Amino acid sequence: MMSASVGIASAQRAHFGTPLTFRSGAILPGYDLMYETYGTLNADKSNAILVCHALSGHHHVAGYYADDPNNIGWWDTMIGPGKPVDTNKFFVVGLNNLGGCHGSTGPSSINPESGKPYGASFPVVTVADWVESQARLADLLGVRQFAAVMGGSLGGMQALQWSLSYPERVRHVLAIAAAPHLTAENIAFNDVARNAILTDPDFHGGNFYERGVVPRRGLRLARMLGHITYLSDDVMADKFGRELRSGKLDYGYDIEFEIESYLRHQGDKFAAYFDANTYLLMTKALDYFDPAREYGGNLDKAFAVARANFLVLSFTTDWRFSPERSRTLVKSLLHNRLNVSYGEITSTHGHDSFLIQHTHYHEVMRAYLDRIAVEVAV
Amino acid sequence: MMSASVGIASAQRAHFGTPLTFRSGAILPGYDLMYETYGTLNADKSNAILVCHALSGHHHVAGYYADDPNNIGWWDTMIGPGKPVDTNKFFVVGLNNLGGCHGSTGPSSINPESGKPYGASFPVVTVADWVESQARLADLLGVRQFAAVMGGSLGGMQALQWSLSYPERVRHVLAIAAAPHLTAENIAFNDVARNAILTDPDFHGGNFYERGVVPRRGLRLARMLGHITYLSDDVMADKFGRELRSGKLDYGYDIEFEIESYLRHQGDKFAAYFDANTYLLMTKALDYFDPAREYGGNLDKAFAVARANFLVLSFTTDWRFSPERSRTLVKSLLHNRLNVSYGEITSTHGHDSFLIQHTHYHEVMRAYLDRIAVEVAV
Repeated sequence: MMSASVGIASAQRAHFGTPLTFRSGAILPGYDLMYETYGTLNADKSNAILVCHALSGHHHVAGYYADDPNNIGWWDTMIGPGKPVDTNKFFVVGLNNLGGCHGSTGPSSINPESGKPYGASFPVVTVADWVESQARLADLLGVRQFAAVMGGSLGGMQALQWSLSYPERVRHVLAIAAAPHLTAENIAFNDVARNAILTDPDFHGGNFYERGVVPRRGLRLARMLGHITYLSDDVMADKFGRELRSGKLDYGYDIEFEIESYLRHQGDKFAAYFDANTYLLMTKALDYFDPAREYGGNLDKAFAVARANFLVLSFTTDWRFSPERSRTLVKSLLHNRLNVSYGEITSTHGHDSFLIQHTHYHEVMRAYLDRIAVEVAV
Repeated sequence: MMSASVGIASAQRAHFGTPLTFRSGAILPGYDLMYETYGTLNADKSNAILVCHALSGHHHVAGYYADDPNNIGWWDTMIGPGKPVDTNKFFVVGLNNLGGCHGSTGPSSINPESGKPYGASFPVVTVADWVESQARLADLLGVRQFAAVMGGSLGGMQALQWSLSYPERVRHVLAIAAAPHLTAENIAFNDVARNAILTDPDFHGGNFYERGVVPRRGLRLARMLGHITYLSDDVMADKFGRELRSGKLDYGYDIEFEIESYLRHQGDKFAAYFDANTYLLMTKALDYFDPAREYGGNLDKAFAVARANFLVLSFTTDWRFSPERSRTLVKSLLHNRLNVSYGEITSTHGHDSFLIQHTHYHEVMRAYLDRIAVEVAV
């Protein structure tokens, strides 16, 4: 069968009126989640797959919009009829996380109590809080147990958390380019990015909306820095090397090297649409994720409650969440006698590999998901 | 012999009244260089060693000041009586590079033509320009040929450039944790740091002096980011791990993890004294250094003119200027049938290793320098 697009996607909004208590103790009286679904939920509701997004992702995972055909879902290469996540077999759910800036309730949303944007008052969200909010979305969709929860990077952390928060509600966890926690170096990069935003004079302590300004400079720097860590040294060398944009040295501070052009462009693009408070929240959720913490750093004990089967994938040139970190995770899963498949994909694209159409990677995903599909009555 | 300090150091200022033409074409009518010397120049002036500094270094390389005994030179562990660079045998010269902010003429100096700080009008300096200015300092000191020119990181690049600009004026080049040019990733990190400064509202296009402000936010971010690249992932994990400063999560944007405390402290300290324009210049000098460029990317051809003997050292955990980059350099030197010693030092400290007292590293340095000392009549 030819691989094809899921076609026209349509975003939906769900409102949840029951208060949600965050790990921090903060309470949100109610919230909205934006989501999209692709494929059809089967009769026994056993073929649902939840796709969790990473730092800058959202609910538009596959397909395109009728009124905006160039706006293609961020994981469209992976999800669709005949694709590794085959929407002829699976009912796929994507959502914008709580705290996001793509329609779900977040810092830029109006707080119904004050009539003003939440801004700095929006609670710091953890991965466990997200899973809580996602479980309510599953309830709404009538999904008691997901065939799989999957994601890359921060999305993979959410998939892992599902196996801990709701062991009986997820049969397979696909954790791609993820890690059981951030290292000091990871946190350090996040902290520089956060400080770029926090110290931008237009940030106004997070309450910039009412001032009609946006901390663009900070967001731009945060994104530029992020991009360096998403790519590998190799792919940067291959794509940009030391190429000069104008062919000669200018002896000034405008763009000279091609890599500068790329980074500044990425930074500008991002700063034009992404919410600074959401960026802060997302990086904190990354920093906080650490299932072992409650068990004195013992990751084996943290996963003792898990019942899911696992596919763990890493990429050779990913220095942000290196293969070594996936192997640490795999060891703890094995120590708990869980079913684990582990793959280390040879790729030059660094951390970003998980988003890229890569034959071997997609073959591994397809093989694993085809086995899940067999369990499911379509 | 016991290793000891060179004792009281005293900074000196030299004025150069002959115009200096930069690689960019810019001309500086005259300039000052701050320098310090340790040890005694021998009768035939054959025992001089020039120490070149890296991004944030200066002329105070060893010893301490009579009125400020805690202000110890930045490479005091390496240089002194009985130390690897033995001041009983060698006459050691340290200087603050042109464009610096420690007394040598730089962007914060008063331009005698305008009576105002140079600011943005100070020319962009290259490594070759620095070597030119250092050669004039050598003339002033009566040193026709250095026994050695040495440095780490950007300092190592200057040492390499000496062998190209003045092949007859340097007998040994000691290039430590250096590289024949920056990679795209290196340039990318520099560009983020520069953009942090350039977009700080207090930067005022480089002419902030007359406004009584300093782009502290930008400098702070630049330094925080720099520090991540100076350290290794391992040493960060060992020193800071995921330790929380208060022992618990605060769910906010103040300092939570120890690594954040360290980085912000380093950033604040640096921003309180370092000049933003100097930071920009130093990073550009790094980006531009690329002896192979004039030879169509052929590094072998670039070093065809070199006559010096070389000690090239790298550190296993240095991911900023990795051992691989030193090996590339070594290959080109060997292709030119030059005398090369190469050492790859096992160290957990990343790029910063070159500044750290490390037994094996210091032993290698001592052994090499002892051989040079034999050539020299003390």
